[in-house]
Amino acid sequence: MRMSRYFLPVLKETPSEAQIVSHRYMLRAGMIKQSSAGIYSWLPLGYKVLKKIENIVHEEQARAGHLPMLMPTIQSADLWRESGRYEAFGDEMLRIKDRHDRDMLFTPTAEELITDIFRSHVNSYKDLPLTMYQIQWKFRDEVRPRFGVMRGREFYMKDGYNFDLTKEDALHAYNRHLVSYLRTYERMGLQAIPMRADSGAMGGDNTHEFLVLADTGESEVFYDSAVTDLTFGDREIDYDNVEQCAGVMEEFTTKYARTDETHDEALFNAIPEARRKTARGIEVGQIFYFGTKYSEAMKATVQGPDGKPVPLHMGSHGIGVSRLLGAIIEASHDDKGIIWPEGVTPFHCGIVNLKQGDEEADGACEALYKSLTTSGLEPLYDDRNERAGGKFATMDLIGLPWRITVGPRGLKNGVVELTSRRTGESEELSPEDAVKKVAAIYAEH
Amino acid sequence: MRMSRYFLPVLKETPSEAQIVSHRYMLRAGMIKQSSAGIYSWLPLGYKVLKKIENIVHEEQARAGHLPMLMPTIQSADLWRESGRYEAFGDEMLRIKDRHDRDMLFTPTAEELITDIFRSHVNSYKDLPLTMYQIQWKFRDEVRPRFGVMRGREFYMKDGYNFDLTKEDALHAYNRHLVSYLRTYERMGLQAIPMRADSGAMGGDNTHEFLVLADTGESEVFYDSAVTDLTFGDREIDYDNVEQCAGVMEEFTTKYARTDETHDEALFNAIPEARRKTARGIEVGQIFYFGTKYSEAMKATVQGPDGKPVPLHMGSHGIGVSRLLGAIIEASHDDKGIIWPEGVTPFHCGIVNLKQGDEEADGACEALYKSLTTSGLEPLYDDRNERAGGKFATMDLIGLPWRITVGPRGLKNGVVELTSRRTGESEELSPEDAVKKVAAIYAEH
Repeated sequence: MRMSRYFLPVLKETPSEAQIVSHRYMLRAGMIKQSSAGIYSWLPLGYKVLKKIENIVHEEQARAGHLPMLMPTIQSADLWRESGRYEAFGDEMLRIKDRHDRDMLFTPTAEELITDIFRSHVNSYKDLPLTMYQIQWKFRDEVRPRFGVMRGREFYMKDGYNFDLTKEDALHAYNRHLVSYLRTYERMGLQAIPMRADSGAMGGDNTHEFLVLADTGESEVFYDSAVTDLTFGDREIDYDNVEQCAGVMEEFTTKYARTDETHDEALFNAIPEARRKTARGIEVGQIFYFGTKYSEAMKATVQGPDGKPVPLHMGSHGIGVSRLLGAIIEASHDDKGIIWPEGVTPFHCGIVNLKQGDEEADGACEALYKSLTTSGLEPLYDDRNERAGGKFATMDLIGLPWRITVGPRGLKNGVVELTSRRTGESEELSPEDAVKKVAAIYAEH
Repeated sequence: MRMSRYFLPVLKETPSEAQIVSHRYMLRAGMIKQSSAGIYSWLPLGYKVLKKIENIVHEEQARAGHLPMLMPTIQSADLWRESGRYEAFGDEMLRIKDRHDRDMLFTPTAEELITDIFRSHVNSYKDLPLTMYQIQWKFRDEVRPRFGVMRGREFYMKDGYNFDLTKEDALHAYNRHLVSYLRTYERMGLQAIPMRADSGAMGGDNTHEFLVLADTGESEVFYDSAVTDLTFGDREIDYDNVEQCAGVMEEFTTKYARTDETHDEALFNAIPEARRKTARGIEVGQIFYFGTKYSEAMKATVQGPDGKPVPLHMGSHGIGVSRLLGAIIEASHDDKGIIWPEGVTPFHCGIVNLKQGDEEADGACEALYKSLTTSGLEPLYDDRNERAGGKFATMDLIGLPWRITVGPRGLKNGVVELTSRRTGESEELSPEDAVKKVAAIYAEH
C-alpha cells in the first residue's frame, strides 16, 4: 500500500478522552474513531489488525476441529425467557421492540440460540461430539463504557459452544479449547495466562480466564511466577488425543494463578516468597464447562446408546477479538507508539523514502515495494512529500515491526537501512538482502 | 471435511414456509435456520458459501483500489437527523433506546456515518480521491420478510462510498465500481446486467442496478437481448484509467436494459422485435452518484486548489452479499438441488464411498482425500454408514459441482468415477487422474 492512497488520519495531539495508552494510540494512529459512547468505527488500519486477529482465531479453531457458523445479532426475547436470562441479564442487555412490537434484543452471547439450533437438528448421540463457534458482533450496554475497544458497548467476539454426551467428553472439549487458546494467543505475540475464575451468571464451576499481564488491567491477579516461564511453542497437538490435551491443561493450570475473585490467601502463601506475584491483568478470553444447565432448561437432549434421552453436557468459550487489539497494545508499546508483534502487524514492513522526488530514491523504493510484494509481504510505502522526521514519527506511532529507510546517501554505497521497531537497532544492507531478511523473519510467523 | 464430523442437518421434507426454490434448498441443505421472522442463523455450510462470496467481493474491491473498513451496526440517531433521513426512513428503520434513553438505530446504510468520518479527518483536496467500503450486517425492519435470505431483515451487505473533488472524478469512481462489480458477479458464475434504475430516496440521477435474470425475481425488467451476449471475461483493467473504465461503462450500459421503474416504452419499441425481451430479475447490487447531497447537508468540504472550501462529490455502491446466495441458487439449480458455480462452492469436490467399512474402498477414499487436500482443494468426504442412494441425494442437494464416487467394483479395475453435478456426466478415471482433472478445473477459478 502506498501512503498517498491510504486513509491514515494520524493525530498529532493526544485525545483528552483517552485514559489508557492503547486507547490513545489507537485514536492517534487513525485505527478507530468513536461514533458514539463505547461504539467505534474501524478505520482501514484498525480494520486490518482486527482481521489479522480474527484470522488467527479462525485458523486455530479449524485446527481444533471446531466448525465456524454465524448467528444473527438481533434475536427474539423468547429463547431468553426460556433459559430465564431475559430478566436476569439486567440493563446491560440492549432491548428492542420491532415494528410489530415484538421483544427483540442485540445478543450479548448466544447460549440460548445455539442450544435451540442444536435441539432442532440433533437427535442421536451418534452425531456427537460437536463444537460450533462464531466470530460476531455483540452488544453490552455498559453504563460507563471506557478504555476504547477494551470496554466498548459494541464488540467483536469469538464465542464457541460444545455439545457432548458425557461430562468426561465435555471436559475434553474444555481442555481442547484451553490448548487452542494458548496457541492462539501465542501467535499474536501475547502471553495469556489461564487463571481459575468465577463462573458468575454462566453457571458451572469449571472456568478459566486468560489474562494478559499489564498495568492497566482491570483485574487484580495473584500468581506463581513459574507460570510465566511456560510457553506453548511449536509442539504438535492431536486435538483428538484426550490425554495429550489433559496434559497441557495440567501443565498450564496446576501452578497457582488466580484473579481476585477466586484468590485463596492460604494457597498463595504456600508458594515460595520469591515466586509470589501480584499484578494487574487484562482478560482476553474465558472458557466454561457448565454441564446441563442450558440443555435441561431448554430440553436439549439426544437419544443415548440405550435409547433413553440424555441432556447434553455443554460449555462455552470466548475470545474478545476486538478487545485483543487493546490488550496487545497495552502489552507492546513504548513512548513513540505501538510495537506490533509480527503475527498481527497490519503491514509487514514500512518503506520510508528520505527524498521523495529524487529519481534514484523513488526508483529504489518502487523496486523494494515490488520485491517485498513478490515475496508475499505487504509493505506500507510512505511516498508522501514530507520531512523524514514526520515519516519516522508516523511509522513509529503505527508500529510496524520493520522499517526500510531509503536515501540518496546510502544508495550511493548500494545500501538501505533496516530498522527494528522493537529494539531500534538498524543495519545497512543491500536492498536484496533487506528483503531477504524481512521475508525470513515472517517465514517464522 | 469428513461428513461424520460436520454439522449438515439436511431435511427430507420441503419446509412449508418456503415459497421459492432458493429458500427451500437453503433450508433443506442445512445452510440456514430461521431464528425469527426474516432473521437467520448461518449453519456451517451456508456460512462457508457466505464467506466465499464475501472474499470475492473483498478481492475485487482491493483490485479497484478501494479501502476496507468497518462501521458499527448501532449508531446514534443524531447524524441521521443532520441529513434529514431519521424521519424520512420510516418504519423500516429499527429504532432503539439505550439504557440512558438515547435514540439509537441499527444501521440500514451508512452515508451519514462515513461522511462524518470523512469531514472529521480530511481537509484538503490533496487527500482525494478516496473510496472506502465495508461488508457489515444491516437491518431493515421489513413489514413482511420473505423468500429467505433474499428479503430478510438482518442482512449482510457491502456498502462503499467515494469522495471526490469534482463531478468528473466522481463519475470515474462510478465507472470504476461498475467495472469491479461486473468482475465480481462473473467470478460467482452470475450474469448480472446493469440496468438504469430509479434513485429513489438516495437522491441523484446516476444509478444502475445489477440484475440477475430469474423467474422468481421481484422486478420486471425490459432489455435488448444483445446485453446478455456481453461478458467481462478476463480482460485486464487499469482502474486508474479513466477512458478504459468509461469504455466498459459504455459497452455494458448503452443497449437498452431497464427495470419497470425507468422503463420507456418508446425506446424499447425501437429495438428490433426479435431482441425485445421482458423478464424478471433479482437485484444483487446498485451504484449511485448523488453529487453533493450529503456533503452539503453535513458540511463535508475540503479546501480546493484555490484555498476555497468545496463540497465533496459522493456516490455509494452496494452489493447484497447474503442475498447473493439466494440469487445464485435461483439462477443455478435443478429438481435435485443446488448446483454451485465453481467460484463459490462450499467444498470443491465430494467423495462418496459406496461401501463404507470395506478396507479397500475406505483406503482409496482416504488417499483421495489426502491427495485433493494436498492439491489445495477442500473435499467433503461422505464417510457415513449410509446407503449409496442417500449419499448421492445429499451430494446432489448441497450442490458441489464435482463428485468422485469410489466403490469396490471400480477399484478392481483401478478406477473411480468423476461426475459433474451440472451435466450429470460421469467418466471413469484412475484416482490420480481424477484429482488432476479436478485440480485443473479449479485452477481456472
